[in-house]
Amino acid sequence: MRFGAGIWLFGQFVDRYATDAYGPPVSTLEAIERAGAVGDLEVLDVNFPFSDPDITVDEVGRALEAAGLKADTITPHIYTREFVSGAFTNPDPSVRRRALELCERAVDVARRLGAPKVKLWPGQDGFDFPFQADYRELWRLALDGVRAVAEMDDDIRISIEYKAKEPRTHLSWSTAARTLVGIQQIGRDDIGIVVDLGHSLFAKEAPADVLSLVHEHGRLYTIEVNDNWREWDDDLTVGSIHLIETLEFFLAVRRIGWDEPILLDQFPFREDPVEAARTSIRTIRAIDAALDRLDHEALEDAQARQDALAAQRVLTDLLLGDPAIAATRAT
Amino acid sequence: MRFGAGIWLFGQFVDRYATDAYGPPVSTLEAIERAGAVGDLEVLDVNFPFSDPDITVDEVGRALEAAGLKADTITPHIYTREFVSGAFTNPDPSVRRRALELCERAVDVARRLGAPKVKLWPGQDGFDFPFQADYRELWRLALDGVRAVAEMDDDIRISIEYKAKEPRTHLSWSTAARTLVGIQQIGRDDIGIVVDLGHSLFAKEAPADVLSLVHEHGRLYTIEVNDNWREWDDDLTVGSIHLIETLEFFLAVRRIGWDEPILLDQFPFREDPVEAARTSIRTIRAIDAALDRLDHEALEDAQARQDALAAQRVLTDLLLGDPAIAATRAT
Amino acid sequence: MRFGAGIWLFGQFVDRYATDAYGPPVSTLEAIERAGAVGDLEVLDVNFPFSDPDITVDEVGRALEAAGLKADTITPHIYTREFVSGAFTNPDPSVRRRALELCERAVDVARRLGAPKVKLWPGQDGFDFPFQADYRELWRLALDGVRAVAEMDDDIRISIEYKAKEPRTHLSWSTAARTLVGIQQIGRDDIGIVVDLGHSLFAKEAPADVLSLVHEHGRLYTIEVNDNWREWDDDLTVGSIHLIETLEFFLAVRRIGWDEPILLDQFPFREDPVEAARTSIRTIRAIDAALDRLDHEALEDAQARQDALAAQRVLTDLLLGDPAIAATRAT
Amino acid sequence: MRFGAGIWLFGQFVDRYATDAYGPPVSTLEAIERAGAVGDLEVLDVNFPFSDPDITVDEVGRALEAAGLKADTITPHIYTREFVSGAFTNPDPSVRRRALELCERAVDVARRLGAPKVKLWPGQDGFDFPFQADYRELWRLALDGVRAVAEMDDDIRISIEYKAKEPRTHLSWSTAARTLVGIQQIGRDDIGIVVDLGHSLFAKEAPADVLSLVHEHGRLYTIEVNDNWREWDDDLTVGSIHLIETLEFFLAVRRIGWDEPILLDQFPFREDPVEAARTSIRTIRAIDAALDRLDHEALEDAQARQDALAAQRVLTDLLLGDPAIAATRAT
Repeated sequence: MRFGAGIWLFGQFVDRYATDAYGPPVSTLEAIERAGAVGDLEVLDVNFPFSDPDITVDEVGRALEAAGLKADTITPHIYTREFVSGAFTNPDPSVRRRALELCERAVDVARRLGAPKVKLWPGQDGFDFPFQADYRELWRLALDGVRAVAEMDDDIRISIEYKAKEPRTHLSWSTAARTLVGIQQIGRDDIGIVVDLGHSLFAKEAPADVLSLVHEHGRLYTIEVNDNWREWDDDLTVGSIHLIETLEFFLAVRRIGWDEPILLDQFPFREDPVEAARTSIRTIRAIDAALDRLDHEALEDAQARQDALAAQRVLTDLLLGDPAIAATRAT
Repeated sequence: MRFGAGIWLFGQFVDRYATDAYGPPVSTLEAIERAGAVGDLEVLDVNFPFSDPDITVDEVGRALEAAGLKADTITPHIYTREFVSGAFTNPDPSVRRRALELCERAVDVARRLGAPKVKLWPGQDGFDFPFQADYRELWRLALDGVRAVAEMDDDIRISIEYKAKEPRTHLSWSTAARTLVGIQQIGRDDIGIVVDLGHSLFAKEAPADVLSLVHEHGRLYTIEVNDNWREWDDDLTVGSIHLIETLEFFLAVRRIGWDEPILLDQFPFREDPVEAARTSIRTIRAIDAALDRLDHEALEDAQARQDALAAQRVLTDLLLGDPAIAATRAT
Repeated sequence: MRFGAGIWLFGQFVDRYATDAYGPPVSTLEAIERAGAVGDLEVLDVNFPFSDPDITVDEVGRALEAAGLKADTITPHIYTREFVSGAFTNPDPSVRRRALELCERAVDVARRLGAPKVKLWPGQDGFDFPFQADYRELWRLALDGVRAVAEMDDDIRISIEYKAKEPRTHLSWSTAARTLVGIQQIGRDDIGIVVDLGHSLFAKEAPADVLSLVHEHGRLYTIEVNDNWREWDDDLTVGSIHLIETLEFFLAVRRIGWDEPILLDQFPFREDPVEAARTSIRTIRAIDAALDRLDHEALEDAQARQDALAAQRVLTDLLLGDPAIAATRAT
Repeated sequence: MRFGAGIWLFGQFVDRYATDAYGPPVSTLEAIERAGAVGDLEVLDVNFPFSDPDITVDEVGRALEAAGLKADTITPHIYTREFVSGAFTNPDPSVRRRALELCERAVDVARRLGAPKVKLWPGQDGFDFPFQADYRELWRLALDGVRAVAEMDDDIRISIEYKAKEPRTHLSWSTAARTLVGIQQIGRDDIGIVVDLGHSLFAKEAPADVLSLVHEHGRLYTIEVNDNWREWDDDLTVGSIHLIETLEFFLAVRRIGWDEPILLDQFPFREDPVEAARTSIRTIRAIDAALDRLDHEALEDAQARQDALAAQRVLTDLLLGDPAIAATRAT
């Protein structure tokens, strides 16, 4: 297992109620240092612009090196104040232009830091109300934006992170399948998808299903992990709620032969971020060890028959132990 | 406006609690007669097999004619007892074969009744539990089944009705985008999509958005309408709950220039079915008249700016009247 | 651990699609026999009327005895055809009267079978559409119905099973707290609550929280268990999806000192019912054994600090094992 | 109709993505001025502490007077950084003490500004993960906190605003019924409930039902209004999505004879706040005028029979007009 994280995990959190933030400000360089302190991370998804305009790309590069980290992805901040009414789908062409300029700078940073990917999470692209937008025009703008970024540099791959909603009530890139449809409409080979376990649960997908569907289409660029209560992007520690589906997801990760880092995408509002990252990694390692012990033959046999009870017994034995054996042991 | 209905609207309803049914049995011929009694329907989506094996295709044809109706679609019952563990995705190849045989007979009935379409709603295809199925195999079987039916007759078009869940907890054909992805994987020109307003609301799509997305992809074969509470396929009368989104949906129907019948898909468990159909048609006609009165220029202007408040004022004026004018009238 | 089940687990299932049912008819006597075959059940919740009017109470009593079972609860069928527009909340007083008459017969059956409780699940009491009902009148009727049944026999206790929806889109007795409010309004001591793990998940409650809340109010009469996907009453095998919350629920069951049977409430549409019951019991026993191994001190310490990460580590260790130890073992 | 608003409607919005905020900072005094600019507001719910510690209560009083407004409610900020792990339910007694001290200051401000109510919205009280907390202890702390505030001043009434979640994944005061249960446990007469239309939709209640339920229990202290997509507290303009249920809510407001101001609770992230408030008021006035035109007799007749189709026809006529009459007019 190899690990990475989104740099935001180590930053300052704020929301609409705790407007004085859940903790003190954290600079990009400090966040990198915290990420290094986790001890198991290899790569980071780094937001751009950095926390302070004075921080240079070289400084970030040196901070990454000092922390034993590499940049996996640069994610431009196309969802901050300037873009609250949309980045690529903004009705104002001058805002759309500025969004592309920011992406161009992010592509440049990716090149300079040796990051192979730029991630687009157009979190302000979409709509909030019925009748607010012309959906065809909105979708056209969404596609145009991604295409334009992909055209900036043929060596940098573009990954789209879909999410059903938040901060808009409806985001343009909402599900794995919708994103596949859009990518096929754009028609380029260097655009792929971030499958985020939490976004997938939240979109009412079966995460293990879409992981392999996207992989099968050759569009799986990044895997991000966390957990939630199925109705919001809570970004909680991995496996804390939906352990069984998380296990199924990591089994799918094995089956497709994924050997790149898996990125943590968490917002530990009320927890220590380094500990929150370590807890997720600890759980993932334990899941991985459990998958070694899993009775794969029995599971595959059950799945060939779509026998839910047999599959459940395999899982219960793995997680809880056979109650008969436990009873014997107790005596 | 032209109208049709699914024949089930006029049949006997049963569920897992009222196992003695919500009313007495209704034969296929009686259901057609009831449909004729509505007075505004042109076409029906007819289930096959008919209610009784003794009923012939000719009898159904004559009943349709007597009721002033045509067959728009034949929908094979691939979700009854034989197929409860899957039709196309059943782990047992002999059941899959029987599902195809049933579809072949439905295609034949379509030909004989002059229905241009066979609809596939594989409501038992999917899964109920995590770890129950190998998702790649499941999807492959889902695609194979639809492809095999499409190959049966090049003149009969195949429409897929997607739904997120029920009766399985997860259906293979779950959303508009997922269905587009599947159809592109199959790679034939004679497979399209039923956009059902209720299924779309329930899938957390914006129905007006996916209607035009599917149309844009050349895959819009049928439009079905009803309403629900967003969390289940309640199949209630049109516009009874989400009037604003229903209005937006019918505006999208206009914008794409749809001139074929719109089909009612309702389950009036506790209401008189003929009255339930009439109430929906009455609402749709009223919506249509309202769309004539809508200030399209003001709405398009608001949408060009994505100005939600301006769009809402246009809508409020249409549905509630301008409060200032109302105040004047009152004096 | 002591176990029971709802008799419906062993009956014939039907839904609105597989109207020819998921299997052949099952009489009350056969269902009791199947329940006996599970091997671990002590008690049943028995529906009345029985499957056939010719079956006598004595025959049911003998069948229970033969199967080694006792009647825990009699649940009148106040949600079948006669009552689809409401039992206690039906707008027609003559239907409300018939509902009470049926309940009176159920109370009599309870007395004769030695069952201490009659359960009311008024699944058709509520509404489907906005503006359909006067909510105050509806609630008054809901309270009056339960009060009237409670007054029938002071020795038989009345338990209310709340559920958010289905088959109505909104049920009158929807959540644990709403049911507590209603019981306090009625003001009698012999009315309590069925906390059904699945209904609680589905109502977006924390099941372990409401279990102890209801217990604290002295109103916990029955515990039923199953699992679902949080959005519908799927009635799946215990712990098959939400294992962590199921574990938390059973810990709460321990903490309140519950020593009565726990009842399975499942609808194994596509599985063998006896095997489905055994699989749930097997899981519950394994959970129980796991609770013996749980580091209660560490958990209580974490909970005293509301330290989610520490609590998660305790859980991960229990279910997956400490990854460090696992790594050591592997070498 | 009389109107008020929560002062936050006119403030600066921030969320976890647009951490540079959706607009520039707004002081308490400026927010009051903006509220005054709406032109239809009588009262405000004012947050304390004010935006700047230098602002005095007298200055706020003068600003309110200058804007033609009165303070209806003082709402202490018990959900900012100091309280992110809970105010009343914080595991640290010193934080709980500080929360009470802040509430005491809010009670004092209420007295000095002549506001009859202090509102408690303990948005950080609850939990995020399974197994994080001992639910009985959590609930005890939640009750103790509210009781302690209520005891501070017998003339100031305490209103609790329930919400299912956000910013915690689970809030202690989650639904109307749960809040009624808690208030009955506390056992004081000066504690009531804010029924917020959006929170009620979001909690899957029928807002018109709980409004009258809470009123019937003598606990309705405040009415707040807005709209959302049923799955999150989107705080959108009134009637923009669920117009029919909004109409039903305002009919319930009439039926209980409410003559106090109705408060807007909106977060117009991307809209001009003054215009967003005016748009809501415009819609509410139009709803009010529509309720004058509503065929109350026909509706009550339909409700007495729980006749959903008849009720829907009354509504359709009101909102869309009778299509037959519309057709006649067109000729």
